Amino acid sequence: MGALLESYAQGTWFRAADEGRPLTDAATGATVARLSSTGLDVAGMVEYGRRVGGPALRALTFHERAAVLKSLAKHLTGFTDEFHALSHRTGATVRDNAFDVDGGLGTLFSYAGRGVRELPNDTVYLDGPTERLGRGGTFAGQHVYTSRPGVAVQINAFNFPVWGMLEKFAPAFLAGLPTIVKPAAPTAYLTERVVRRVVESGLLPEGSLQLLAGGPEGLLDHLGPQDTVAFTGSAATGALLRAHRAVVSGGVRLQVEADSLNCSVLGPDVAPEDPEFALYIDQLVTEMTVKAGQKCTAIRRALVPEHRVEDVVAAAAERLAAVVVGDPADPGVDMGPLAGHDQRTEVRAAVAALRAGADTAYGDPDRGALSGADRERGAFVSPVLLRARTGAAQPHDVEAFGPVSTVIGYRTVEDAVALAARGRGSLVGSVVTRDPAVARAVVLGCAPWHGRILVLDGDCAEESTGHGAPLPVLVHGGPGRAGGGEELGGVRGVLHHMQRTAVQGSPDMLTAVTGRWTTGSRRTTGQEHPFRKSLARLRIGDTVSSAPRTVTLDDIAHFAEFTGDTFYAHTDPEAAAANPLFGGIVAHGYLVVSLAAGLFVDPAPGPVLANYGVDNLRFRTPVKAGDSIAVQLTAKQITPRAGADYGEVRWDAVVRNGDGDTVATYDVLTLVAKEDPAG
Amino acid sequence: MGALLESYAQGTWFRAADEGRPLTDAATGATVARLSSTGLDVAGMVEYGRRVGGPALRALTFHERAAVLKSLAKHLTGFTDEFHALSHRTGATVRDNAFDVDGGLGTLFSYAGRGVRELPNDTVYLDGPTERLGRGGTFAGQHVYTSRPGVAVQINAFNFPVWGMLEKFAPAFLAGLPTIVKPAAPTAYLTERVVRRVVESGLLPEGSLQLLAGGPEGLLDHLGPQDTVAFTGSAATGALLRAHRAVVSGGVRLQVEADSLNCSVLGPDVAPEDPEFALYIDQLVTEMTVKAGQKCTAIRRALVPEHRVEDVVAAAAERLAAVVVGDPADPGVDMGPLAGHDQRTEVRAAVAALRAGADTAYGDPDRGALSGADRERGAFVSPVLLRARTGAAQPHDVEAFGPVSTVIGYRTVEDAVALAARGRGSLVGSVVTRDPAVARAVVLGCAPWHGRILVLDGDCAEESTGHGAPLPVLVHGGPGRAGGGEELGGVRGVLHHMQRTAVQGSPDMLTAVTGRWTTGSRRTTGQEHPFRKSLARLRIGDTVSSAPRTVTLDDIAHFAEFTGDTFYAHTDPEAAAANPLFGGIVAHGYLVVSLAAGLFVDPAPGPVLANYGVDNLRFRTPVKAGDSIAVQLTAKQITPRAGADYGEVRWDAVVRNGDGDTVATYDVLTLVAKEDPAG
Repeated sequence: MGALLESYAQGTWFRAADEGRPLTDAATGATVARLSSTGLDVAGMVEYGRRVGGPALRALTFHERAAVLKSLAKHLTGFTDEFHALSHRTGATVRDNAFDVDGGLGTLFSYAGRGVRELPNDTVYLDGPTERLGRGGTFAGQHVYTSRPGVAVQINAFNFPVWGMLEKFAPAFLAGLPTIVKPAAPTAYLTERVVRRVVESGLLPEGSLQLLAGGPEGLLDHLGPQDTVAFTGSAATGALLRAHRAVVSGGVRLQVEADSLNCSVLGPDVAPEDPEFALYIDQLVTEMTVKAGQKCTAIRRALVPEHRVEDVVAAAAERLAAVVVGDPADPGVDMGPLAGHDQRTEVRAAVAALRAGADTAYGDPDRGALSGADRERGAFVSPVLLRARTGAAQPHDVEAFGPVSTVIGYRTVEDAVALAARGRGSLVGSVVTRDPAVARAVVLGCAPWHGRILVLDGDCAEESTGHGAPLPVLVHGGPGRAGGGEELGGVRGVLHHMQRTAVQGSPDMLTAVTGRWTTGSRRTTGQEHPFRKSLARLRIGDTVSSAPRTVTLDDIAHFAEFTGDTFYAHTDPEAAAANPLFGGIVAHGYLVVSLAAGLFVDPAPGPVLANYGVDNLRFRTPVKAGDSIAVQLTAKQITPRAGADYGEVRWDAVVRNGDGDTVATYDVLTLVAKEDPAG
Repeated sequence: MGALLESYAQGTWFRAADEGRPLTDAATGATVARLSSTGLDVAGMVEYGRRVGGPALRALTFHERAAVLKSLAKHLTGFTDEFHALSHRTGATVRDNAFDVDGGLGTLFSYAGRGVRELPNDTVYLDGPTERLGRGGTFAGQHVYTSRPGVAVQINAFNFPVWGMLEKFAPAFLAGLPTIVKPAAPTAYLTERVVRRVVESGLLPEGSLQLLAGGPEGLLDHLGPQDTVAFTGSAATGALLRAHRAVVSGGVRLQVEADSLNCSVLGPDVAPEDPEFALYIDQLVTEMTVKAGQKCTAIRRALVPEHRVEDVVAAAAERLAAVVVGDPADPGVDMGPLAGHDQRTEVRAAVAALRAGADTAYGDPDRGALSGADRERGAFVSPVLLRARTGAAQPHDVEAFGPVSTVIGYRTVEDAVALAARGRGSLVGSVVTRDPAVARAVVLGCAPWHGRILVLDGDCAEESTGHGAPLPVLVHGGPGRAGGGEELGGVRGVLHHMQRTAVQGSPDMLTAVTGRWTTGSRRTTGQEHPFRKSLARLRIGDTVSSAPRTVTLDDIAHFAEFTGDTFYAHTDPEAAAANPLFGGIVAHGYLVVSLAAGLFVDPAPGPVLANYGVDNLRFRTPVKAGDSIAVQLTAKQITPRAGADYGEVRWDAVVRNGDGDTVATYDVLTLVAKEDPAG
């Protein structure tokens, strides 16, 4: 009899006083561990997360949080073999482990990278540009995202005990929200093992991750408006959570990601001899058999042209017959058992229900060859492929959460789109086609019903990550039956955990609140050129205001000749006069910004190392021969880079002519040393 | 006895067969109209919106929808006087009409402008950059937003019968979602009048706006995963909707915007003699009395330093004593009645409940001077200011939806932030201070609990739109008690109505689906330079690939001398060699892009009118003396501008050196004529 799993609560490992329920090996039925949270103080966990974990996390900047995630990902990578071995007991094969264990670690690494590249080295995220709210420029608005002083409760599904935890934990952690993770019972021992390795590492701020190994009873009762609940599982349980008092009237934010009846469309252009036909069959069989079909994103409905149904069934059946089902720890096995006997009972019932509208094309859930495994003890089923009867409703309504798919014929592309929608909302769909017009029609027709859509063809097949794999940089979730939630998607998944607020006030007040210089805000012009200041001394608002320079007709002619940019507006007085926007010779935009750099640059070696880019350059008033220009450059945003001796400085640049009209506005991006050179 | 209001359903005006219930004039108690939707086919309305309104709307691009909104706003502006006059019967004064009627039209105009400036002239919105998903560049992802084939049901509150309808309708319309608007009973006659003027105009695609004048009974039962419900009203009704089967398990998306116990903080730095003190009092009194305090955003809690409580009470009481309450149609009246007797009964009960934790500082809901009005017939109440007892809970829990506020003392800024949070989530908060540190502490401390926060000081007071006014370009909504919803915020409010989907595939397929050229996608290089093609002939992917040009040391030296940009990395070999990033003389970034323009430009007059900007310029590899560079310029996005004979073309520019390394990447923005010149 396996050991009793412990919960990690309020900084210590909690062990229930009772024996708990047994958790069994999916392939052998042996007891792997026991599960109980009897006596666990869930209210105390919520309070601890809010009081200890939240403040510790929010004391770190996004970049610092990302660095912790990176260290953690590296640390956990050292335990990959251990996780893989334990994962086999959940029924996962070698291939399945690549999705769950390796995919989970990959998600940590991805968020660590995104956190540095796409979030500021600060605790506030600025959303969109500053909005000018008054003509005089004294009143403006800026949207910001801030961290909530709550907890993120994550209720995971049994099928991805590692990835499921890490893909929810990483964005919440970056957002500054401490996590309480509640794994699903059947595979909770693997999640517990990973959490144990995390806790041992000592890398996380105390209180930023707690584990509830056991039942969630009463947990939601302690949550409020600053807390989020992210749930992955069945649509039925999702509905129960949505009806909970805490959600209905307590202000708790709930994200649901539910199994859905995902479809894959074979384009009408694809013939059996085309490479895309093989890709379609390969993907269908893969999606049926990875994790023994226990994936929220698996293909449940294969939508194929009516006259291709038999071709698809025959090709898929041939491939399915070669799938080796058996001991998941054996590298030669393609597909392991379901997570347990309860799951098998449900799959068999669902197949029976589907058969009211479909005929068996391949397989039998009660039979099939097994390799090195015991059918009585393990939760094995054979892959089952069904062929829908014309107009049948069941394939669009009934989900068998196992290696089961139904082939459904369609007549036209519009018909395929309508059939896809009959799933009432899916996590993912795919279309296999070489015809861009088919791709566009299927994708745009299906998009409102899907969180993700893959277009698979020969061009991308080698690099494609496949129909079933959510990626950390793309959103995961879907409307309707799929739960109506959204997670991942890079920074999008972080911001879902934060509160967006519109801040209004004078430019100076917006600068003070956001830490970024706001147009109209005070500029500081001193004796010292700001290019002479390292990050240690440079301040937001530090400004250089240049002397004016006259742009002559000779300058324009010379620049045209030198660069080769002899566009007529710069060289041909008559043609330029006929241009509706200029009415005469104008300076090149590139000349204006080049001269502006000549006006603001401080040339001697110093802390400014390089200009690495320009953003949002807009030419607002043409510069004509004889006009003078001057430039103001103001330090707008200062981002020290962790682990380097320099950082990024974003400068606000405004070029004005002699009349004070704005000629050009842009951001200049530079790398600046953190410290002044010694001496 | 007023006329029976009609519903606008399925393209015709529907009149109930029964008499309906009377709707009364707020000031006189006279019957203004009667309301009944008995016999109305609400299921038919939903079906009509989906079948007729949605397809008609989605056939238009965002720009075309924006143009319709602009025409509609202009048309309705012609009926302003009529709306104002009818609005007085709801209890609205001249000042109140500026918020409801004029504010509603302003919101239409604002969305018309944003729709053109910030949305593409297309039906698909692209969200974020293309994500490279494979090292080889053959597999990529792009997030898109598409229109849902559903309806937007809008259940409005009684207090803003015009603004409330238009601020929900405009974003839904832009999003391509047909609206069914259900006004609150007490003021439904004004909404009905506006809808009548809208329908008469013939400007809207048929089916894009329907009116349900009456009860919403059964409406939600007909909604599904592609439909949205936006509700403004009480937290209690919001909770009822959230528990509805259609929301819990039917996939309907619900946005709730509920009354909240908004606070305004007087900074500890503000003394009674400071101008900010007067601003605070002025804003408090304004928020108490506009719409007779019947605003979701009104200040219910005045958080002031403990030692300023009496100063604030005294100054506010003095101002309140001068407020003229009476006939709303009289321009000399400051505050009208509540919407009706039911509302007055509720406010009186709420004041009684508040008194369990607060003392009256000014006013009596049962008494007070009246100007030109009858207390018995109208729903008048006096403004009431309360002073909270130390530690009392009621001011943070009980909302009196009328001219009622409570002054609450705080000790420290942290204390003020904690008191603000006791409202459990608000639409808006404000802080009046001159101290940037106070502003930052209050705003960032309160932000997770608020949808909007105003920092008011002398610098912005003249242009400030005030604590209580939601603006179309800023988000409106709030967490927890405020409903957890979000609307407006410019394009954000449009996207809330659409579905975000991650599309994966080869670059060519992403180009086909999105209509925007994707990096890695096919380039078309022909005999004709793409600058010679008008929008009528230019195609996505059209490319010019330049010949190479060598950048010499002389070029760099000359450019430095000519522009004045003598930064040492371009002029001083020794210092440049010491630069950690360059290790020797490098060309100016501005020189690279100037020469690149010389390489790609086609100089003769033609359809390309101007380069109006550059986006996302990044210098990726330094160019050293002797390096050659060449540029590829590819038409990436083509946006014809409505009402002009030109449009915008965004070009993808890549500069590479002789080794094929990428030197610089950027987008070049040009204006291009729609048609080739004749002849």
